[in-house]
Amino acid sequence: MSVSVKERVELAHNAVGRKVPTMVNGKPQIPFLGAGKYQPRGRKAAPAICSNKDYPDSGDKRVADLETALRKCGLRDGMVISNHHHLRDGDKVALMALEAAARVGVKDLMWFPSASFPSQKSAIELMEKGVIHHIEGSMNGPLGDYCTQGKMRGMGVLRSHGGRYQAIQDGEVHVDIAVIAAPTADFFGDADGSHGKSACGSLGFALADSIYADRVIVVTDNLVPFPCVPWQIQGNNVDFVVQVESIGDPAKIVSGTTQITRSPDRLRIAELVAQFLRAAGIMKNGFSFQAGSGGIALAFVEYLKQMMKQDGVKARFVRGGSTKFLVELLHEGLTDYILDGQTFDLDGVKSIANDPRHVATSPFTSYNYHGKGNFASLVDAVVLGATEVDVNFNANVVTHSDGRLLHGIGGWQNCLFAGCTILALPSFRDRIPVIVDEVTTLTGPGEMIDVVVTERGIAINPRRTDLLDAVTAQRSKLPIRPIQDIKAEVEKICGKPARPKLGDRPCAVVKWVDGTVLDTVWQVS
Amino acid sequence: MSVSVKERVELAHNAVGRKVPTMVNGKPQIPFLGAGKYQPRGRKAAPAICSNKDYPDSGDKRVADLETALRKCGLRDGMVISNHHHLRDGDKVALMALEAAARVGVKDLMWFPSASFPSQKSAIELMEKGVIHHIEGSMNGPLGDYCTQGKMRGMGVLRSHGGRYQAIQDGEVHVDIAVIAAPTADFFGDADGSHGKSACGSLGFALADSIYADRVIVVTDNLVPFPCVPWQIQGNNVDFVVQVESIGDPAKIVSGTTQITRSPDRLRIAELVAQFLRAAGIMKNGFSFQAGSGGIALAFVEYLKQMMKQDGVKARFVRGGSTKFLVELLHEGLTDYILDGQTFDLDGVKSIANDPRHVATSPFTSYNYHGKGNFASLVDAVVLGATEVDVNFNANVVTHSDGRLLHGIGGWQNCLFAGCTILALPSFRDRIPVIVDEVTTLTGPGEMIDVVVTERGIAINPRRTDLLDAVTAQRSKLPIRPIQDIKAEVEKICGKPARPKLGDRPCAVVKWVDGTVLDTVWQVS
Repeated sequence: MSVSVKERVELAHNAVGRKVPTMVNGKPQIPFLGAGKYQPRGRKAAPAICSNKDYPDSGDKRVADLETALRKCGLRDGMVISNHHHLRDGDKVALMALEAAARVGVKDLMWFPSASFPSQKSAIELMEKGVIHHIEGSMNGPLGDYCTQGKMRGMGVLRSHGGRYQAIQDGEVHVDIAVIAAPTADFFGDADGSHGKSACGSLGFALADSIYADRVIVVTDNLVPFPCVPWQIQGNNVDFVVQVESIGDPAKIVSGTTQITRSPDRLRIAELVAQFLRAAGIMKNGFSFQAGSGGIALAFVEYLKQMMKQDGVKARFVRGGSTKFLVELLHEGLTDYILDGQTFDLDGVKSIANDPRHVATSPFTSYNYHGKGNFASLVDAVVLGATEVDVNFNANVVTHSDGRLLHGIGGWQNCLFAGCTILALPSFRDRIPVIVDEVTTLTGPGEMIDVVVTERGIAINPRRTDLLDAVTAQRSKLPIRPIQDIKAEVEKICGKPARPKLGDRPCAVVKWVDGTVLDTVWQVS
Repeated sequence: MSVSVKERVELAHNAVGRKVPTMVNGKPQIPFLGAGKYQPRGRKAAPAICSNKDYPDSGDKRVADLETALRKCGLRDGMVISNHHHLRDGDKVALMALEAAARVGVKDLMWFPSASFPSQKSAIELMEKGVIHHIEGSMNGPLGDYCTQGKMRGMGVLRSHGGRYQAIQDGEVHVDIAVIAAPTADFFGDADGSHGKSACGSLGFALADSIYADRVIVVTDNLVPFPCVPWQIQGNNVDFVVQVESIGDPAKIVSGTTQITRSPDRLRIAELVAQFLRAAGIMKNGFSFQAGSGGIALAFVEYLKQMMKQDGVKARFVRGGSTKFLVELLHEGLTDYILDGQTFDLDGVKSIANDPRHVATSPFTSYNYHGKGNFASLVDAVVLGATEVDVNFNANVVTHSDGRLLHGIGGWQNCLFAGCTILALPSFRDRIPVIVDEVTTLTGPGEMIDVVVTERGIAINPRRTDLLDAVTAQRSKLPIRPIQDIKAEVEKICGKPARPKLGDRPCAVVKWVDGTVLDTVWQVS
């Protein structure tokens, strides 16, 4: 069974000229108004008041299995089930929960993972069978592909990590049942991610779910006597605890090692980024930065580290996704703290488990835009990737140039609020230029992207005259070039890319950090 | 100006026969229905949705002074201002805030401290001047006395630590502006209590205020560069940060030492409590207990420690209020963890700042009754004090036998949910018997109090046949006696106490942990 959405979808142009649906999965939408323009009103979601009298005095909330837990949670048709993705491609719990729901016999669930991965592609079968109605959440690989083939009932909704917290907090998404995979937990439901055979580091992505869901189930393969210390998920928010043999495949939860790129072009990009931070005066005592886990980002950290040592510069904090490269900075006294949102390798997990200077953060502290500030805007520089960037510095991270949805947003949008946002990109991939006239899917508005670094040169957003002045004043030998020049050079090599052939049916939307609709992902024809 | 409440107050009898007002400070009340009988309905308080766009990108929320911060918070007549009491009798911030409010010129504030202390008695002047309308919160000493003299406009409302969290969470008390004293903070508002010249340990009592108040001001005398690690109060909930010279008097924030009683009678009580735990089989591997900071409680910990060593028994966790005696248990390997709600001495502060096994908890994790369970009910045994206990095991901790309100509830009510609740009491004080026919003010229902230990013997609540059987089976030599026998013996020495002469005007109410009204504190005639 593969039912398509047949009804006509009303479209509106948002503030950046993108056509977006005014209604998504039955809920009215606000088109993007421009960064910092939307004024939220109203109040946060208000969970029901519970009473301890309805929970065991002993604190023991264990039940036999997930199916029992889901039944006790009152699972029924059309509910929203959530999971976190800290176990990444090694996660077993989300499918375990969805399959248990299938056995209970319910239909039309909305699955609301913080991200989904290729190993979860059998969720497609559950969609075909009608158990899952649609997915809201990052869809990496096959599930995203399925979505852009137009096969999913309901629209995909792509949110950043912060946007997901915002949506739950603001009541845009009401989670009926949260199922939280926990590498360590006690019978009361206190849970942590940094210990146990399936250790994954932080559990921050499950925080909003644990606070706002009606019912919360903790699933663990490492039950410890109360209290589970430290606890990142508080048992006081948990209804049931389920013990299972294994919550995931450790080999795929964290990589044993994280690899620096060996490509000479990519190494050059990484070095240019580091040189830019130094030349622009951003790399100075007490500064902060964030870089991801990609090969370029890791190489950047290594180059920056050498420069920090040469110049005697120490960071106040660095933001993870943590890797051994950040952990080394900590150990070598080159940063006071790692503020970590997710933990990418074994060194990161070991460090967050044992070093009080390696601090677990959450989408609430780091990324939520509907709060009283967040950590992301306090970071001096962030180094990010993208699938495409256009001449107006707009960038895409979710679709490929053929229109297929293959990636999630992650914390990418949230990081754009850093003092200096740098996209570190090869100028082409598989002979397809990365710099284009207009991005296929707008994920980040150009006004928030400051620098694009490619192996062919560095383009500074003309809005950032301060950065341009800073590197000019330094008489740096950096290859600063207009973005159009780099684009023209690449097109001489690869040819001008054809625009993808997209259908006229929206199959997913990209939310901005404030819940408004930034762009539409169209069915690939 | 000392305006009295003139209007007639409707009274109703609650489930334990106490006369309680049906309306308190303009809000309808639910009389106590019996422990575990009240079914809360509705949803938690929902704070307004904020946007980062209204907060500085730099994260710097500092303003010049408290008066400026209060003005920016929109302070006006009739608002609710809250403070925490982790700085105890050394706190300077609450009065600083109230006096700043007086300078702004507002009237009729409701002051909502988690507790107030003798050093804050000049709040009486602010009540006389009309700045403060009334106080809801524990009133230790002069402020409580003022209340029972009938001089406070509005009624006092006494809540346990958990009840205070519950009241804020459930929206029974809406805090307009929370002013949080922070021994360490950064400019973003992240704050912690375990470091700095005014270190006090945990800041848990301020948690609910930080989450649910409309506006939150952090006041610190130890500003550190972002990030303040660890943070117990999250800057994401904070509006303004104010730097001051000193938030409190360190000598009165924590005592340098905590003294064990030297009274032979009280030492005997402490020893009997420890012997009882051993004889009843509660003191066994993996057990847990909580004891306060009073002289008897400290001595009890020392006796128990010796017995644990003798028997080779180790606790899984102990609950603070932490003192050097609990810290020693941790250091000597006699407990895995200290779960700490407040920190009473310098050893406790040093330990919580440096030992990951000494964990800060909050009224949410430990005491809130309107959650999905709490830590207090997972504790095997708790040792508490009381001003009076009656033959039905009902106990009083707030008033003296003359009816004067001189103490707060603290976590006392919340602790009654432990597996075994023990009151450790001298049988008389100042020749006034402690065991009475009926307590002056009911603070804890007798059905929840299991054992009363005095220097003249141990009375076990007849409901707890299991405890009676356990100590009988052990053929212990413990002086187990009916409570009436102990009472009769004391009355032979002291005479039967006269009932206090109480007026017929309610001047405060005692809330139960679920927000219902357990009893009334009457004006002393």
